[in-house]
Amino acid sequence: MAEVLIDCEKLQNWVEGVFTHCGFSTKDARLCSDVLLSADLRGIDSHGVARLSGYLRLIEKKRINPAPQMKILHETPSTASFDADGGMGLVSAPVAMDIAIEKAKNVGSGWVAIQNSNHFGIAAYHAMKALPHDMIGFAATNASPLVTPALGAERMLGTNPICLAIPALHEPAFVHDMATSAASNGKLEIAERDGKNIPKGWLTQKDGSNSENPSELKNGGMLLTLGSDMDHGSYKGYGLSAVVDILSGVLSGANYGPWVPPFVSFLDPLDNLPGKGIGHFVGAWRIDGFRPAAEFKTHMDQWIQRFKNTKSLENNNPVQIPGDKERFHHSQRASHGIPLVEKVWNDLQNIAAQTGIVLTP
Amino acid sequence: MAEVLIDCEKLQNWVEGVFTHCGFSTKDARLCSDVLLSADLRGIDSHGVARLSGYLRLIEKKRINPAPQMKILHETPSTASFDADGGMGLVSAPVAMDIAIEKAKNVGSGWVAIQNSNHFGIAAYHAMKALPHDMIGFAATNASPLVTPALGAERMLGTNPICLAIPALHEPAFVHDMATSAASNGKLEIAERDGKNIPKGWLTQKDGSNSENPSELKNGGMLLTLGSDMDHGSYKGYGLSAVVDILSGVLSGANYGPWVPPFVSFLDPLDNLPGKGIGHFVGAWRIDGFRPAAEFKTHMDQWIQRFKNTKSLENNNPVQIPGDKERFHHSQRASHGIPLVEKVWNDLQNIAAQTGIVLTP
Repeated sequence: MAEVLIDCEKLQNWVEGVFTHCGFSTKDARLCSDVLLSADLRGIDSHGVARLSGYLRLIEKKRINPAPQMKILHETPSTASFDADGGMGLVSAPVAMDIAIEKAKNVGSGWVAIQNSNHFGIAAYHAMKALPHDMIGFAATNASPLVTPALGAERMLGTNPICLAIPALHEPAFVHDMATSAASNGKLEIAERDGKNIPKGWLTQKDGSNSENPSELKNGGMLLTLGSDMDHGSYKGYGLSAVVDILSGVLSGANYGPWVPPFVSFLDPLDNLPGKGIGHFVGAWRIDGFRPAAEFKTHMDQWIQRFKNTKSLENNNPVQIPGDKERFHHSQRASHGIPLVEKVWNDLQNIAAQTGIVLTP
Repeated sequence: MAEVLIDCEKLQNWVEGVFTHCGFSTKDARLCSDVLLSADLRGIDSHGVARLSGYLRLIEKKRINPAPQMKILHETPSTASFDADGGMGLVSAPVAMDIAIEKAKNVGSGWVAIQNSNHFGIAAYHAMKALPHDMIGFAATNASPLVTPALGAERMLGTNPICLAIPALHEPAFVHDMATSAASNGKLEIAERDGKNIPKGWLTQKDGSNSENPSELKNGGMLLTLGSDMDHGSYKGYGLSAVVDILSGVLSGANYGPWVPPFVSFLDPLDNLPGKGIGHFVGAWRIDGFRPAAEFKTHMDQWIQRFKNTKSLENNNPVQIPGDKERFHHSQRASHGIPLVEKVWNDLQNIAAQTGIVLTP
């Protein structure tokens, strides 16, 4: 068995059932399943149902609160800090994004820093919530330390992604969702699974020297920041990652840097934490806070069409618009089903056995 | 003559005199000289007085308006679009930043998109204006097309910098100012001046193939985005650069992509421009819109101290905090003077001769 193909809606309903079984409210369980499946649909396999068992282990260890009382801690007309009460980032980030959108409706923009949260799935889900409101959406999060700053040899930062989602008129939205490391963890996992080497510039060994073996991450290696080395701007990727860490962690009252709690349940958080849980930072700008939305979106269409027509380096390999690849996956998988590799399928079957909630292919 | 060392204040007064001579108001001339000298002080030689002759040529060609009537076009409590009336970005960006700061005082954050502007100097000057107000500052701009998107072989984007400035308590502020290209134009200029090759991954020839010769930029070559190649995330640098272009250009009503007017006066803007001039995007978040500023700044000190103490890859080459290098230059140059290479000194002497405003070493 190489791969199981499973209908999206069926898989989502099952995921929802699992979360409900774990004590989540119907609403939260639905939201979690929606965020996870959006990753699988968009082809970000590392952030979809493949992570379900990881979340469940954290719930079991009481490091994730299945029934949180989330609340705004402090606010101004355009800003807020938000306490996720130890709940899922899959819940806190969309809820906080709704608050940001509401603020943007009222005063032109809205920004919410979230503390005491956990892994929030794909950033694009949250940023894209702004699109139907003719707003530009922003989402970022810090994450378990796996990345060394430029010139360093120590895990100090997460892959700390940033996403910007920008609407267009007839063209699909521009959605740029990127880890600030040279490569995401997911890419390493795929290379490791396929027994392949990785390019130099993604990963170091424990001593900080470069490695092309994806398994070195498990041996204490470190991911490198975007830019990979000083000559190619690793200090830029470090600075971006640091900004994400500060907005998500320091500004919200969450943990930051090496203190961000690990995603894996077999590693405990450090002692003397400076904040609470993991942090996120989300926001939205209302387009007509700057110029009429229809005018902006017409120009976005022109921007997109012109960039699509960039002279390409190789025939048959055109310049893409950020989000094109994910949208292609989405259209394929929504109609043909979501492919799950054997390891993930077995993982889900174990969950099915433990919870008694059956999942058939 | 290798280099002239000149007192900062003396140089600034002279620059101010030159702008006044060109028809600038005293206030605008002072502001322009302040922004330019801040680049020289911070060691960003490519963006300081070295650019003065370029600005003057654009003024002479009437592509920069020395006496603009800048105004807010549209606003909400936390956003605005701003018309620079063809004036200097060195003026419009700080003025717009003041508007953003005022909005942040009132409603927690403020964002201003600027159209019909010109080159704004270093982004850090504008973002750092937020620091004394206990705010986080943001500044970005689009720029003349010199950069190819990932997978492309055409000049479509500028070096499109982003800066975030974040205050701390006892530690100096965190200031991350980066071009979204793999290397800045300034680095190529230095390599060319010194007759040195550049690393692979910075530049292509006209046909899109990699080049290690910095002079190829003048032969129609293209800068590469941060990440340098697809394996190392050039699509991430492209996405970031595109975001800067859209916020600065499309959202403001300025030009964008390949239509951004060239900085060099010997190249005319394209026909059928979609917007007005160059665009910038600046903003500020009030820290106590999220948590008490003193609390935040105490944690920023901890963040900075912990990152400074990251285990380093090489002895005597510690991990730096974004802004450290520039602050070091600033302290050196403020007390010992600003070093000007022969080419720049001769340029300034030509200006002195034309304007009759004497500049002595």
